[in-house]
Amino acid sequence: MRWKCLVAYDGTDFEGWQAQPGGNTVQDFLERRLGVICERPIRIHGSGRTDSGVHATGQVFHFDQDWAHGGEKLLRALRTGLPEAIQVQLVEEAAVDFHARYSAIGKRYVYRYHEGWAPPFELRYTHSLKKFRLNVQAMNMAAAALLGTHDFSAFAANRRDGRSDDNPVKKLWRLEVVRDGPRVTLITEGSGYLYKMARSLAGCLQAVGTGKLPPEAMAGILHGRKRTHVVTTAPARGLTLEKVFYPEGPED
Amino acid sequence: MRWKCLVAYDGTDFEGWQAQPGGNTVQDFLERRLGVICERPIRIHGSGRTDSGVHATGQVFHFDQDWAHGGEKLLRALRTGLPEAIQVQLVEEAAVDFHARYSAIGKRYVYRYHEGWAPPFELRYTHSLKKFRLNVQAMNMAAAALLGTHDFSAFAANRRDGRSDDNPVKKLWRLEVVRDGPRVTLITEGSGYLYKMARSLAGCLQAVGTGKLPPEAMAGILHGRKRTHVVTTAPARGLTLEKVFYPEGPED
Repeated sequence: MRWKCLVAYDGTDFEGWQAQPGGNTVQDFLERRLGVICERPIRIHGSGRTDSGVHATGQVFHFDQDWAHGGEKLLRALRTGLPEAIQVQLVEEAAVDFHARYSAIGKRYVYRYHEGWAPPFELRYTHSLKKFRLNVQAMNMAAAALLGTHDFSAFAANRRDGRSDDNPVKKLWRLEVVRDGPRVTLITEGSGYLYKMARSLAGCLQAVGTGKLPPEAMAGILHGRKRTHVVTTAPARGLTLEKVFYPEGPED
Repeated sequence: MRWKCLVAYDGTDFEGWQAQPGGNTVQDFLERRLGVICERPIRIHGSGRTDSGVHATGQVFHFDQDWAHGGEKLLRALRTGLPEAIQVQLVEEAAVDFHARYSAIGKRYVYRYHEGWAPPFELRYTHSLKKFRLNVQAMNMAAAALLGTHDFSAFAANRRDGRSDDNPVKKLWRLEVVRDGPRVTLITEGSGYLYKMARSLAGCLQAVGTGKLPPEAMAGILHGRKRTHVVTTAPARGLTLEKVFYPEGPED
């Protein structure tokens, strides 16, 4: 039996999603807990990695396990024995050919900026711009140049492990910036994201918003297909994986 | 010159407001930072203590210091060199007879409950009730019995240091519970709060909300003027000091 799970986490205190020798990742905690529940080593498969400090409200993973007690009981078992910053929110049986990563057709990330200091309760989930203000109109103008299907290599970072990324051609069908008082949020939906791409988009759009880059520069950066020093990576704390889309269709 | 300051903090990682030998309190951090800025030891006076783990969006303190550069510059100096979970939000010159504690005429606290688990981003600021649901109507019925001027000794805890509290007669002019989906918030405004009184009110009203105590029991508990085992102290993380009122009048 294959189980599809939805999990939310505050990434602040973890070293990212992917299992590491140190054991302090979200995947490590989930696998250890599932190992106890299922009484055997369990390997889970996430929709993709999130970096150290990045959050998720809608990360998806799957694993295989025979289990006669139903998803609800599995969910209850997963509600305890985990750090409270990791919350499994849904467990449901999936088709045997469902794969959290390979079945995914897209993802939504949000990046939260706050002009000045974010208040303490939002600080862990927001990039505080201290003395900077953002020109949201300029950011949206720049964002428009990135919509569609492109080679996004200019917005990727090299992995530290030297592994090369998958196909650099991705499709972004949503990239917009909205303001709510001092809170400025970047919302992006796309077919996939290269390593650090979401944070590189956020860093570049921030540079546009603060006037360091003109919106017109964006097309040139994209078509250069090579990362240069003008592309910076925005801090992890501002980024949240909100939703993974599967062919069943977006549910919200 | 006397300076009145407004400060917000995420209390999770501090041992409360009041200075302690260990130095890990909000007051300790503020005094150390002010000592550096003013180049001499500074003693600050808060409107009152908050317990370990309790948060504030509107704590007020004052201190005396000659300073020729204006409040704005003092604020900027206080914006750096502090843990980011402590944020000074306003610094203004006050009358020499202003006292953060003795001039205060009231305080607003909010207590946040969440039915089931609070999502990760709210977890540090919310008491997750896991499997409990709350009857908000019953809670408001119970709350009504506490409004007005009373001896609130039944809702106070003994200080560990053996110090006796001030006058146990306080006036509560607001005590109401509101629901927003699974989020249930207790809002209380009163002339003052005894040691652990806000959390004891929250614990007692939670017992009413979950059906462990009938709303009608509240008047008897209050008039007993002695704490008994039916009064429990709700966890610190749910409590936030939102506002200290001064005779100038509530500003919001």
